[in-house]
Amino acid sequence: MDTHTVAVAYIERLEARNWDGVTALLAEDVVYEMPQTRERITGREMFMRFNVEYPSDWHLAIRRVVAEGPFAAIWLDVRDDGKPVDAIVWLDTEDGRITRVTDYWPDRAEPMPGREHLTTQF
Amino acid sequence: MDTHTVAVAYIERLEARNWDGVTALLAEDVVYEMPQTRERITGREMFMRFNVEYPSDWHLAIRRVVAEGPFAAIWLDVRDDGKPVDAIVWLDTEDGRITRVTDYWPDRAEPMPGREHLTTQF
Repeated sequence: MDTHTVAVAYIERLEARNWDGVTALLAEDVVYEMPQTRERITGREMFMRFNVEYPSDWHLAIRRVVAEGPFAAIWLDVRDDGKPVDAIVWLDTEDGRITRVTDYWPDRAEPMPGREHLTTQF
Repeated sequence: MDTHTVAVAYIERLEARNWDGVTALLAEDVVYEMPQTRERITGREMFMRFNVEYPSDWHLAIRRVVAEGPFAAIWLDVRDDGKPVDAIVWLDTEDGRITRVTDYWPDRAEPMPGREHLTTQF
């Protein structure tokens, strides 16, 4: 499976709650990081528990996957308990298995003042 | 110039304040979006003004570029007035020019309670 295909499968299997399918994509020593909270989870078993136990009703739709060599970036439209959230997932792979997952969940923010002459709101 | 090279050049020329060099990478009708604040800037001239006028002392270092076809994802280590910030930039290109730039600037956040049994802090 090439990296692009691994990335698509990772998201589709998570969304399907196909836990065996997700597990099959992960290296045993996979590392999961959320840089915003500086949380790290080490190892496939703990990372799968994190996914299975995640408390909200989450749904993932792929907006874009970009893969090159062993790396992929995934742009997601997430619904988290119904709330729309954008997310970005970076994947590192080795021999077709995911060795590192880095998740970003950017929050909504207020525009900085002083640039209204350049911008429109959407 | 392939998409990966365009992405690297885009960041390097921004960091060098090589404004003519950045301009040369952009389609005239480039669209810049910041989904977190829902701000949009339309057109190369306005987008260049936004960059030139940006009030802080910012520095960009590439952590990773992943490109596939006309798309690229860029993972940046930013220093914004000295403060370290992670950023993610999505690029769309057409005929080797950038037609769309989407920036995410994820803020630091507090860990959600209830997963301390799975995570470590870094």
